[in-house]
Amino acid sequence: MKLAEATSTFIPRIEDELRSLLEVRTPSAARHYEIMQYHMGWRDPELKPAQASSGKRIRPLLCVLACMDAGGDPSQALPAAAGIELLHNFSLVHDDIEDNSSTRRHRPTAWSLWGVPIACNVGDGMFSLAHLAFFRLLDRGVSQRAVLSAVKSFVEMNLALTEGQYQDMSFEERLQVSVKDYYAMISGKTGALLAAASEIGAIIAGATGDSLRNYREYGAALGRAFQLQDDILGIWGDEQETGKSTANDILSKKKTLPVVIALNHPDVGRRMRTLYAGPRFEPDDVPAVLSLLDLAGARQATEQAVKEATARGHAALQRLDEVGASSAHELLIELLNTLVSRRS
Amino acid sequence: MKLAEATSTFIPRIEDELRSLLEVRTPSAARHYEIMQYHMGWRDPELKPAQASSGKRIRPLLCVLACMDAGGDPSQALPAAAGIELLHNFSLVHDDIEDNSSTRRHRPTAWSLWGVPIACNVGDGMFSLAHLAFFRLLDRGVSQRAVLSAVKSFVEMNLALTEGQYQDMSFEERLQVSVKDYYAMISGKTGALLAAASEIGAIIAGATGDSLRNYREYGAALGRAFQLQDDILGIWGDEQETGKSTANDILSKKKTLPVVIALNHPDVGRRMRTLYAGPRFEPDDVPAVLSLLDLAGARQATEQAVKEATARGHAALQRLDEVGASSAHELLIELLNTLVSRRS
Repeated sequence: MKLAEATSTFIPRIEDELRSLLEVRTPSAARHYEIMQYHMGWRDPELKPAQASSGKRIRPLLCVLACMDAGGDPSQALPAAAGIELLHNFSLVHDDIEDNSSTRRHRPTAWSLWGVPIACNVGDGMFSLAHLAFFRLLDRGVSQRAVLSAVKSFVEMNLALTEGQYQDMSFEERLQVSVKDYYAMISGKTGALLAAASEIGAIIAGATGDSLRNYREYGAALGRAFQLQDDILGIWGDEQETGKSTANDILSKKKTLPVVIALNHPDVGRRMRTLYAGPRFEPDDVPAVLSLLDLAGARQATEQAVKEATARGHAALQRLDEVGASSAHELLIELLNTLVSRRS
Repeated sequence: MKLAEATSTFIPRIEDELRSLLEVRTPSAARHYEIMQYHMGWRDPELKPAQASSGKRIRPLLCVLACMDAGGDPSQALPAAAGIELLHNFSLVHDDIEDNSSTRRHRPTAWSLWGVPIACNVGDGMFSLAHLAFFRLLDRGVSQRAVLSAVKSFVEMNLALTEGQYQDMSFEERLQVSVKDYYAMISGKTGALLAAASEIGAIIAGATGDSLRNYREYGAALGRAFQLQDDILGIWGDEQETGKSTANDILSKKKTLPVVIALNHPDVGRRMRTLYAGPRFEPDDVPAVLSLLDLAGARQATEQAVKEATARGHAALQRLDEVGASSAHELLIELLNTLVSRRS
């Protein structure tokens, strides 16, 4: 099986699982659920049914593939996969509020359409539904022990996610952000969710011990590579392809790895820090930042870091291969390679 | 045992459980946890250790007492009790954002001190920690089956809470809110959490079937009585005692039961709706609203509703008594009676 085939097999089933999770449960709170559906890409701003771009669904796919790789039945993992995707989307709804972002995936964000109070609460509802999804595992024959273990991994990841988001926001007020600080932040903000997705898939397949740790490590490495690629695309990506405004990533003074590298660079660091210590950026400031990033070699250094993270992911798969636990190995390799070479 | 004795026995142990849950887990995200601790009343606005008023801790107490009443060991319920209290406090942090409230328990709210982005994420962290608390039940010898059942009840309650909050916010834009709508809203916003607190305590004690349903019903009735009393205090309570601004509840046009009764009243309804349809209230508008509430007999009607909810709670306890499942019965009766006669 190729990744494209796995994607076209599982994504529609994950989508069905998500849709049934997000059905209106209480008529008098219909709009609460319809706004969740809007965020997922299934409704337009008037809340009429629609089909907008809905994100890449990488996290749930990873969960299903890890389950398969560890010798499990991928169908059993679908509810957990849906819960993981929903958790990711909850975090986007709140991140959009916290980052004051008015656009995501070429569409207005929930808070920009319905206000912060409604959107904050919609996020909380998605958060609850994400947890509720895991109880469907019991109906698919997953053992109580495995469900408890999966939910615990999920909850610990949620907490790590808020730590990562806290660190990300605190970076906005700081000029002294080291590369180490940066990695701690993304390990919470992106790595934790992908590590948990991979681990939870393996838990459902019955994996334990070293095997489980390697699935976790693979997911964490994939998460790091993915985030670093995101940092590159957020500055040098094609706005038409990514659906995100490039200037926004710089205007908001986000401390992505290229920026952190330049802030700490022996030659351009001082000028970079002066720029970042100054008042709010205007669009006119963007070229100066880009030129300092260039002088610092920030793009190449970040590309090198992507390569290293990718190698870590491959090494984890290699270790799993040695214990013969891999039946969807090619897919996990292809997933990693696809993510790090993506353009959007 | 009297309620005062049970309170002084269990509240400090619940507090210890809460404090150990909210310890700083990651030094680089220390402030993330310290802001949670501020909200709980353990730190001042400079985040130095302090002891401020911290709420009544009714929900965790109910959880522990229900466990005891159902024949369980109350110590086993402590982690769940702490999780329930933490969930309640998460919802307050987000409600304060959503209701634009700058004061709670005589202190500035988290968002008013650290901004909406930080506070929203702090709430999400508390939400995750509330779930994490339940995994401590396994260390106290609670069975996997009971833990799964408790977490499921908890998660379903969380979702109901967001529905209730959605309805509460949607009422702000509506003049047509029936008494039935009102009860649907508070059953999510207040009833669900107290129903779950009581149910979860009983689950930990091993209760099932009818017995469990009666614990749930007792908690739901207590929640309703509690909320109705809150509505009364929010309008006619002593600001010095409640720590909340009376005018604020009317100024924000909150659809509490007294207001809903007056809006639907055959004589004063029209005038009340005209007032509520008009522009934002100024402090000068408050006396006119108070006088219409008076003419509608809204206070007496709400007091009557408190009595009915209290009777429902007593009836649920009576049914539990008949099957001989009650060993902390007097305490649950006293808890109900205390809550409905409180002044703050």
